Amino acid sequence: MNIREYILKMGQAAKLASVSIRRADTNQKNAALTAIGEEILDQRQYLMVENEKDLDAGRANGLSDAMLDRLAFSDAGFDAMVEGLAQVVQLQDPVGEISDLAYRPNGLQVGKMRTPLGVIGIIYESRPNVTIDAASLCLKSGNATILRGGSEAIYSNRALSECITKALLGSDLHKSVIQLVQHTDRDAVGELVKLDKYVDVIVPRGGKGLIERIGREATIPVIKHLDGICHVFIDDDADIERAVKIAINAKTQRFAVCNAMETLLVAAPIASDILPGLATQYQDFGVELRGCDETRKILGASHRVEVATQEDWGTEYLGPVLSVKVVDGIDSAIEHINEYGSNHTDTIVTENYTKGRRFIQEVDSSSVIINASTRFADGFEYGLGAEIGISTDKLHARGPVGMEGLTSQKYVVFGDGQIRQ
Amino acid sequence: MNIREYILKMGQAAKLASVSIRRADTNQKNAALTAIGEEILDQRQYLMVENEKDLDAGRANGLSDAMLDRLAFSDAGFDAMVEGLAQVVQLQDPVGEISDLAYRPNGLQVGKMRTPLGVIGIIYESRPNVTIDAASLCLKSGNATILRGGSEAIYSNRALSECITKALLGSDLHKSVIQLVQHTDRDAVGELVKLDKYVDVIVPRGGKGLIERIGREATIPVIKHLDGICHVFIDDDADIERAVKIAINAKTQRFAVCNAMETLLVAAPIASDILPGLATQYQDFGVELRGCDETRKILGASHRVEVATQEDWGTEYLGPVLSVKVVDGIDSAIEHINEYGSNHTDTIVTENYTKGRRFIQEVDSSSVIINASTRFADGFEYGLGAEIGISTDKLHARGPVGMEGLTSQKYVVFGDGQIRQ
Repeated sequence: MNIREYILKMGQAAKLASVSIRRADTNQKNAALTAIGEEILDQRQYLMVENEKDLDAGRANGLSDAMLDRLAFSDAGFDAMVEGLAQVVQLQDPVGEISDLAYRPNGLQVGKMRTPLGVIGIIYESRPNVTIDAASLCLKSGNATILRGGSEAIYSNRALSECITKALLGSDLHKSVIQLVQHTDRDAVGELVKLDKYVDVIVPRGGKGLIERIGREATIPVIKHLDGICHVFIDDDADIERAVKIAINAKTQRFAVCNAMETLLVAAPIASDILPGLATQYQDFGVELRGCDETRKILGASHRVEVATQEDWGTEYLGPVLSVKVVDGIDSAIEHINEYGSNHTDTIVTENYTKGRRFIQEVDSSSVIINASTRFADGFEYGLGAEIGISTDKLHARGPVGMEGLTSQKYVVFGDGQIRQ
Repeated sequence: MNIREYILKMGQAAKLASVSIRRADTNQKNAALTAIGEEILDQRQYLMVENEKDLDAGRANGLSDAMLDRLAFSDAGFDAMVEGLAQVVQLQDPVGEISDLAYRPNGLQVGKMRTPLGVIGIIYESRPNVTIDAASLCLKSGNATILRGGSEAIYSNRALSECITKALLGSDLHKSVIQLVQHTDRDAVGELVKLDKYVDVIVPRGGKGLIERIGREATIPVIKHLDGICHVFIDDDADIERAVKIAINAKTQRFAVCNAMETLLVAAPIASDILPGLATQYQDFGVELRGCDETRKILGASHRVEVATQEDWGTEYLGPVLSVKVVDGIDSAIEHINEYGSNHTDTIVTENYTKGRRFIQEVDSSSVIINASTRFADGFEYGLGAEIGISTDKLHARGPVGMEGLTSQKYVVFGDGQIRQ
């Protein structure tokens, strides 16, 4: 069987399975999730052995320490994966929820019912725990899932998939509710994203290259997560203590995450007061600064600041680098963010009512924040329970995507024999 | 300037205009809509003359009477267009609405704010009043719009576009908030649907050919409206009087609409009681019947019923033809609908509680109805105020799409200096 036929068969099986899981009640879905968790715990030793094979291969292929770190099942990571399953069991089942049910003048009652999307394709890289995180959210929201992990994690993913299949076979659900692409062939991705007859949506989780490739090739809607070029704007009416705390936290609490700040904007009237202290703290955290002319004028004598080029303003560093710009005020800040940002997450620090309101309204990003760190843009922090990713798209799901983003709403109408005149 | 450059320039202008209209308040948007209505009334004579040019060309090109009818500004159609504008003024502005604003344990307040999508491309055929209907909904929901009407309505559309531009020039909004593609070149569509840098979503309104072409070529998300293969299932627990009224209304109240019934499913236990009377009524309405074997057995002696082929079950007739199938009961009915339907609108007629609940849950269509005509699946009837179309997609907007479907939701977060631990 070639790759095209192999993926096609998976799609057909997933479509069939999606019909059965759409009808499954919450207890049946929770029982399956619990069984998967138990199976994973039972197979801990086996999973660790398989994971070690990936790590060996990764070392042989010269993967970076950071990559190997993401690939490895640590004890803590393993526990978190199982704990994650238990948390999804606790989440409220969104399927079947009816909202906005209201009477029309003719007596019809019209509302919206939340329904599964159908079949979801998840394409991800490296971290094998995504296999469990993504599959559990898709299952709880009533969808069938096709998982396509990275080739560097194939042993770990196959072993996890064995656990899942075994648990599903003992459950009320169809075993094809969760399937893993067992081939590492790169063509499998190309085939999967064109399976529009069977797959309803593709969720890619990975680097920019992967996501751009999928955007280009897919004939299925994609919930995309592109760059996180996040800003903090310190307004001249900011509470300076808060501003410093937020600006430091947004950059340094963790570097390689999409909701970390990449560009700091400071209002001109307070720039020379606030920047030197901030710069010293950043340098203590090992953060390289790249500044506009004004920033370099202020900091030049006391700190090392490289020139920020045009390219810097549009770069997601994902590391200990920060670009800094002094702006006239809120107008220039909003303009800069909407031009160079990636519509991900942006914060204003201000005590001024009107400027706060304007920032919230006019910044066109998936999360817009007043007086808190950009690092809060996250499904767990927002109370979604878990997230499958953060969407930088505007259609369907925007910002952190929880189970609601894996569902749709259909109209339900209750009548008493009404006909249209 | 070639077509590519022409469309590119429109996209850039729309993107700029979208920034200004995103900030516009409701009064400014309503004033512009009102001015457009006044301008259209002022130019009634001119619009009628230009419309006549399209009709002349249409007659010369051998357009069908039905097509010419859709193309013509009747007095009633003209009034309805102006009245539609006034209704959109009355609709509540969705932009800026904040919902689900709730405190998190750390004191952050997280909610969702409704925002415009940005730039919307509308591609439509024939009826020139869509120019005004679509543009007004997009404007009210804070979006910039690029309109691409059919070449057969180009004189009417250009004249309407002149009215719009004149009104916008006298308003607080940017004149490029609504633009019409003035070229009739078919390539304009191909260029528009690939303008992903400037256009956020494409809404096609037209025949299957147009929509399939756009689905194939677009690199921008599309809110698609494909076929309406709608069903009425008369359960054996139906109130027969209601069932007959609904089955007649769903087929005959209007033929060429997407929410008209195309296939009637009747539960076997009541088929021989109900079908003969129904068939007589259908034939009085001039409806051609195509039936399954069982239907033909029941009706064969008394009525003319053609054989329904496999193809019939998947056909949107949009005319006075109805396929009829006798099914065992609700299981077969749901299976038939999910297999042959187009996920548009389906009705069950029943007095049975459990079967009603099952139908609502298990039929995977954008509107699922108990005891009312499929003809109610419509933005006005559902209370959305107006609709830009009916989506048969699952992502973003499903079913009748009103202004809410032309907006997105971003997260807004109100903090007091919170940083992430």
